[in-house]
Amino acid sequence: MDISSRMLLTIGYDGTRFQGWQVQPGALTVQSEIEAAIARLCPGGSPRVHASGRTDTGVHARGQRLHFDSPRPDFRPETWMRALNGMLPHDIRIYHAQSVPAHFHARFDALRKEYRYFIHRGRVLPPEFRLYRFREPRPLDLPLMRQACELLRGEHDFASFSALRGSGDEHTVRTLHELSLHEYDADTLCLHAVANGFLYKMVRQLAGTLLRVGLGKLDLSELRKLLENPFRGSETVSAPPQGLFLWRVTYPEPIE
Amino acid sequence: MDISSRMLLTIGYDGTRFQGWQVQPGALTVQSEIEAAIARLCPGGSPRVHASGRTDTGVHARGQRLHFDSPRPDFRPETWMRALNGMLPHDIRIYHAQSVPAHFHARFDALRKEYRYFIHRGRVLPPEFRLYRFREPRPLDLPLMRQACELLRGEHDFASFSALRGSGDEHTVRTLHELSLHEYDADTLCLHAVANGFLYKMVRQLAGTLLRVGLGKLDLSELRKLLENPFRGSETVSAPPQGLFLWRVTYPEPIE
Repeated sequence: MDISSRMLLTIGYDGTRFQGWQVQPGALTVQSEIEAAIARLCPGGSPRVHASGRTDTGVHARGQRLHFDSPRPDFRPETWMRALNGMLPHDIRIYHAQSVPAHFHARFDALRKEYRYFIHRGRVLPPEFRLYRFREPRPLDLPLMRQACELLRGEHDFASFSALRGSGDEHTVRTLHELSLHEYDADTLCLHAVANGFLYKMVRQLAGTLLRVGLGKLDLSELRKLLENPFRGSETVSAPPQGLFLWRVTYPEPIE
Repeated sequence: MDISSRMLLTIGYDGTRFQGWQVQPGALTVQSEIEAAIARLCPGGSPRVHASGRTDTGVHARGQRLHFDSPRPDFRPETWMRALNGMLPHDIRIYHAQSVPAHFHARFDALRKEYRYFIHRGRVLPPEFRLYRFREPRPLDLPLMRQACELLRGEHDFASFSALRGSGDEHTVRTLHELSLHEYDADTLCLHAVANGFLYKMVRQLAGTLLRVGLGKLDLSELRKLLENPFRGSETVSAPPQGLFLWRVTYPEPIE
């Protein structure tokens, strides 16, 4: 593999304190914290970092990826990892750093993304999970929710499951490789969603839709209509952000 | 069972924001938050609450118990649970409420307490666990740590594992019914400790001692000496508070 000064990082964050990933004037964001940490290590030439995609306020990451062009040829990937973990607040951590070819791009080269959404089923949400799980104590029809997952999997126009409204000329077809419900522990359901890409708020709208199916508020024929008549004005409900983790981003080999 | 106006609550909290359990002037504590919530529900007669024991700054609870004498005869246990969960911040939750006899005492009647201490074994502590696990990435000799647990189990004078110093006239014999290491998940060890009672900082000192054994810094003969020559001035290392949860408190039947 051709090695350049381009670095690819795998990072995790607790989204609670941040107004999402992306730099915005006057806002505390994950991107601004990382760029500030790099700037402290590279006086005079601080690069912009590029993530695989944005995450919203309150959404967490276990495996976000980002690239940047290292202004420090003396820093090996291991050095970047240690130096940044030394600089960053503990709610952002670098899990891994690697050199990648100069043409690599964290967003454009992403093959698949995986999100996980954690749903607490108990009557009371344990305090230590309050920022990381969404509580839904009402009875859920899991077999019906699993049928809904099956309907949603595959290639579809997911416009009905996007929060974007307006001109509608953006390409809204995506392939949902996986959408499945797992019993994470006795009190917790976890929704796994893997796609070649997700529209704005799509995972939270899929989670919100599946919960409505499970609660008997939306039936499979209505769900089928949302898929067959994709339109952005649909009143699909988003599940809250705190249950959501960007779990993994996959690139073509040889990048791990 | 004789029913009185005495209520027993099972509660959980995230200890991060609090200076421990106990009311102290000018400090934010779990007890003061609960007493303030009860006071708002009972103008004119707000009772003191009595826990099974204190927890320190940063220590969490999954199953702390407390009792108080209800000034509201119109409130059933279920009403107390709902009303307090409506008043309290989300880092304190009431899991259960029940009526108990007038002579019941949450501290004096406690038969056993269980604590759990979570140790993250990976190189990087995921941000969402930073307040709930202690990170120890160095190799640990688990078989030796399990032998150390076996030595510590049973009835002993645990003075060497208490942070209290001074006159030494307090009774320091306790029975450790269980002390065992479990692989909670691929990256996490969990120490379970069950006793008829614990001395001040005893669980954290047991965790710190077991980690020193696992790292090869303390051998079993030195550990045996600490047990055979109990003394409060011993320089036993406390593990940090954030990995520790008060997990369960058990009372004689018929109280669950």
